Amino acid sequence: MIKTIQIKKFVPGQELLHQQEEKLAIEEPLEISLSSSEVVMPVPVSVTMRTPGQDPELAIGFLFTEGILTSVEDLQEPAFIQKEENKISILLKGNARGAIEKLKRNFYTTSSCGVCGKESIEAIRSVRPAQILPADYVIPAELFLHLPNQLRAIQATFDATGGIHAAALFDLDGRLIHLKEDIGRHNALDKLIGSAFLQNRKTGSLFSLHTSILLLSGRASFELIQKAAMAGIKIVCAIGAPSSLAVETAVEFDITLIGFLKQNSFNIYSGAKRIMA
Amino acid sequence: MIKTIQIKKFVPGQELLHQQEEKLAIEEPLEISLSSSEVVMPVPVSVTMRTPGQDPELAIGFLFTEGILTSVEDLQEPAFIQKEENKISILLKGNARGAIEKLKRNFYTTSSCGVCGKESIEAIRSVRPAQILPADYVIPAELFLHLPNQLRAIQATFDATGGIHAAALFDLDGRLIHLKEDIGRHNALDKLIGSAFLQNRKTGSLFSLHTSILLLSGRASFELIQKAAMAGIKIVCAIGAPSSLAVETAVEFDITLIGFLKQNSFNIYSGAKRIMA
Repeated sequence: MIKTIQIKKFVPGQELLHQQEEKLAIEEPLEISLSSSEVVMPVPVSVTMRTPGQDPELAIGFLFTEGILTSVEDLQEPAFIQKEENKISILLKGNARGAIEKLKRNFYTTSSCGVCGKESIEAIRSVRPAQILPADYVIPAELFLHLPNQLRAIQATFDATGGIHAAALFDLDGRLIHLKEDIGRHNALDKLIGSAFLQNRKTGSLFSLHTSILLLSGRASFELIQKAAMAGIKIVCAIGAPSSLAVETAVEFDITLIGFLKQNSFNIYSGAKRIMA
Repeated sequence: MIKTIQIKKFVPGQELLHQQEEKLAIEEPLEISLSSSEVVMPVPVSVTMRTPGQDPELAIGFLFTEGILTSVEDLQEPAFIQKEENKISILLKGNARGAIEKLKRNFYTTSSCGVCGKESIEAIRSVRPAQILPADYVIPAELFLHLPNQLRAIQATFDATGGIHAAALFDLDGRLIHLKEDIGRHNALDKLIGSAFLQNRKTGSLFSLHTSILLLSGRASFELIQKAAMAGIKIVCAIGAPSSLAVETAVEFDITLIGFLKQNSFNIYSGAKRIMA
């Protein structure tokens, strides 16, 4: 995920530019396409600029949170072909025409980062993920204060480059379950959700998206809340600020949204009923 | 650009969640389409999640940096129709079929955030903006140290919400010329470039993109360097980290790229020849 290069550093008072090594977060395009036995050529879906690694998880998470994939049952075994490093084709079972038609219809709203608010909100409404977290489930507020340090402790890449976002899942007792990193915050979340999607398929058991706390290393935009909603995640925390539409979407889909999560305080933007001071 | 809402704040040791006002950066979708007298229906191009305000600048900057618009001569007068708040149609002169065909061909690579690296790099190569900054132009390193404070001093929205990115242009003596803000860093830069594009048209004079310093409030991704390259900007500074592909693109297109710009130091990733310690 990291590339080391030679740079020059300027510090006032020093006459020369000082040569030193610096670590960069790797950014490369990934072309995602859909294939099925009924389609002659893979249908291109999106090109996203991502940090290489876990491309199948990224592609499947993206297709799932865009509403193009709805179930692990839609996937062939194996679920993808990746002949070139920056191209992946996800393989759908049988007649994928429905998914591909849907895709074409919504083509210009399907982008690697952010889609039309209205259509995306419709997509969440039409999917309506199962409610697994009991309606009256309550979490002690203190628990949230311990999440950022756990994230930072293992987010080694971030420390090295200053350029990588993370999305992490914690269980309801605040234990870290899973962490994904990428140069794009939406990609980090897609990787996380895609890996849950694939794990469900392998084990047959329900990966705990519905009963987890999602922690985002940066800000919370609409797109991230939309992805969380599609995945049935009910508790989302961000280290940074949420946007207006992120808050409105969290309210509409009954998601508890925490922002500016620090070691000594946080803000609750929606769903405060799940938090006990 | 800001919306005020009621939130609850948690501080350990306080028994109750404390109610308070909080300011949010506004995020809403904008649908950009292209029209001309030869086309019956506007052709949708992209939906981007943006902070409302300066939508014509955003749309025109986006179309220009994507290589769909190449000259102010392509635009009608007036250059756009915006009947609904979140929809804008840019009006092209005469036969826009070329631009629209190009658009359709590249459809899936045209997204609101990041496009296919290869095709975008090809687009820059095919455009090859004029070289106006003299090849041997040199700037004293100290000058850059004063840019971040100027940005912060006037970036009021950022202070209020913690959720807005800025793109600013400075002249070669380090004086702020122009600043644009948006919840999306790519939108802030599109607004800046679009306003230069429109200003050139009005005044007939060359807005100083080619002889300016661009300052980005966050990290420098490939997409931002690609947009700068399309606009002929030769000196780009970021407060945060650049990505690997951002550095590679800056090297290829002879852009001076500074990262981690602080009051007391900065890193030079490419084009150090233009900086004198």
